[in-house]
Amino acid sequence: MPAQTSEVVIIGAGLIGLATAWRLAADGIQVTVCDPTPGTQTSSVAAGMLAPVTEVEYGEDELLALNLASVAAWPTFAEELEALTGLPAGLNRTGTLSVAYDVDDAAAIHRLADYQRRLGLEVEELSGREARKREPLLAAGVSAGVWVPGDHSVNNRETVAALLEAVELVGVSLVRQRVTRVLTAGTAAVGVELEDGSTISSSQIVAATGPWSAKLEGIPQELRPPVRPIKGEILRLRVPEAYRPALQHTVRATARGFAVYLVPRPGGELVVGATTSELGYDTRVLAGGVFSLLRDARMVLPITDELELVECVAGLRPATPDNAPILGPSGLDGLMWATGHYRNGVLLTPITAQVIADTIRSGLPDLAKPFLASRFSSGPSHLADRSEGPGE
Amino acid sequence: MPAQTSEVVIIGAGLIGLATAWRLAADGIQVTVCDPTPGTQTSSVAAGMLAPVTEVEYGEDELLALNLASVAAWPTFAEELEALTGLPAGLNRTGTLSVAYDVDDAAAIHRLADYQRRLGLEVEELSGREARKREPLLAAGVSAGVWVPGDHSVNNRETVAALLEAVELVGVSLVRQRVTRVLTAGTAAVGVELEDGSTISSSQIVAATGPWSAKLEGIPQELRPPVRPIKGEILRLRVPEAYRPALQHTVRATARGFAVYLVPRPGGELVVGATTSELGYDTRVLAGGVFSLLRDARMVLPITDELELVECVAGLRPATPDNAPILGPSGLDGLMWATGHYRNGVLLTPITAQVIADTIRSGLPDLAKPFLASRFSSGPSHLADRSEGPGE
Repeated sequence: MPAQTSEVVIIGAGLIGLATAWRLAADGIQVTVCDPTPGTQTSSVAAGMLAPVTEVEYGEDELLALNLASVAAWPTFAEELEALTGLPAGLNRTGTLSVAYDVDDAAAIHRLADYQRRLGLEVEELSGREARKREPLLAAGVSAGVWVPGDHSVNNRETVAALLEAVELVGVSLVRQRVTRVLTAGTAAVGVELEDGSTISSSQIVAATGPWSAKLEGIPQELRPPVRPIKGEILRLRVPEAYRPALQHTVRATARGFAVYLVPRPGGELVVGATTSELGYDTRVLAGGVFSLLRDARMVLPITDELELVECVAGLRPATPDNAPILGPSGLDGLMWATGHYRNGVLLTPITAQVIADTIRSGLPDLAKPFLASRFSSGPSHLADRSEGPGE
Repeated sequence: MPAQTSEVVIIGAGLIGLATAWRLAADGIQVTVCDPTPGTQTSSVAAGMLAPVTEVEYGEDELLALNLASVAAWPTFAEELEALTGLPAGLNRTGTLSVAYDVDDAAAIHRLADYQRRLGLEVEELSGREARKREPLLAAGVSAGVWVPGDHSVNNRETVAALLEAVELVGVSLVRQRVTRVLTAGTAAVGVELEDGSTISSSQIVAATGPWSAKLEGIPQELRPPVRPIKGEILRLRVPEAYRPALQHTVRATARGFAVYLVPRPGGELVVGATTSELGYDTRVLAGGVFSLLRDARMVLPITDELELVECVAGLRPATPDNAPILGPSGLDGLMWATGHYRNGVLLTPITAQVIADTIRSGLPDLAKPFLASRFSSGPSHLADRSEGPGE
């Protein structure tokens, strides 16, 4: 088959790959995105929380800065996407309410609120009664809350649909095939091979390959990123008209030590997530996962029992050893990573697209420097990796 | 549109309607069955237990006799269906194990076992340990069991598929339309009207209309049967190869006062049922229903957590005031009921088909006499109804 060429080839048409393709093509760059099933994997399974505050973990300050930058970028990202496509981008800026069930749960969320406040994040501690004032259908057993006005949510399926439209409008070539390997010449990536045996030559490849990143063929073993799949099961419930809105804000609960979140959508959908399992590339929905989500959700929101269970689905989070993404140069000239977003893929979509586009235009921005793949390698230093930026 | 005619018209292509059509057409009678979606409703939702013994309720002796006659008829029914079609009929004769969780549960199943034994049914009381010997994956907390060798199960989706093939082979005309009304002339039913406005004339109509029986138009109000829908949610799980067979027998559990059953299929499916809700014609699967099934199933079979949740579905049982079906003459000449089978539709399929075929050929058999619709009416006596049998 004749070889094609493209200025940039992006492997993977999830939210990250699609947003990056849109940003690059809008700048006049010729972009090809390869994916056998665009937008259907983790990007369509996720609940879509934009939760830099409520997802903060002790000691992840650099990731917090990136997350905050991305939540700040979301409104403009959504406006531009809507202006271009005429479709909803799915952003829902209604804030998040953390709630606790028993005394231990309350201690845990208060401890986290202290830490969040020390980081300068906006949080407001509430009694159980004050929490129920904001969300009247919460269980009487909810003992405490923390109001987090800056954490929002996105209907990520709407975002996927809008991005698929956007990439078409800006002239991205979408190839519905799996990339079987990255083609190299010496120490450089020079293209990709597709499952039909054809190839696309390119001097700049972006691997937005999510949980499959470590399996991408053609990359030297020592440069493969330490990304592993962590399965999450998630439920989609439907709130009958008579009970709407069951919730007005995202509710994150710590219920007898278990974490569960409930993300309401305008229109009556309520997304409940998520389990966490280290089971490799298994996307079966297990009965035990569904049971635990329902058990925890109904503990804090008893009306859960009366909602229709519309969908049970599992997806794979692309996890890294430090929970932070892998962005920018890979150590192989001409190949960049935009992967490893773990629980923050929807949140980090705008900033990742911007970082990759900036890197291709003018080199890696400072914000992204803590997230190079080389932080996991014992060999070459960060500086060595940085010198391989495609802007050079 | 031109009026068609048929010797017999059957309304409803569930198991009851299809089996009746097969039996009549095999005798050389011209049969038309009308159903917009043959075999897709309750008949494909049910778990398929053949449980005359374990479903027995105090004081339902006439129903028990009918149920026992039908479970005895199943093997021949299945053999004939398989011989005709070459397809599996789905019968699985592996017996049923009732188990109890706590002390109160054990008392309940022992009390029922006493009653079953007094009725002459074959039951064998077991300790928790003996129950686990028969089903090693049962929870350590299972405290007692009752072995019921005569209660079996059917993969009812296989039965539906085989019956659809059978009716085609014996020349039944299957009309994929809804019957909008029964047509009458004086005190007789004379045909049916279809949703496209066409009609089929017939001097013998059989309403195998299940939970929709009371809504059948064209029938005088006082002759409408007291059938109401009772919703049941049901789950289909998949047992991974490594754990097969998770169960070898149908397991019915009484777990902290809740009833749940687990029906294994050859091939790894495990059906878990069923909730009971009086919600009219609502077939939404509610989160609370799924939760309660999983809670009870995992209490007696902990490995439930590791099984894939493949399907959550709800169906409508056609319930009557005395839990027994409504068979035979309706009080309207030329219209017979084959409905109201509540929890026993799969079980009662062979005997119902036989009763209706016998009634059309030679009058209502004695076995069916307790199940006339007239038992619910304050007006005409049973005898009056019997005189209207189509054999006259």
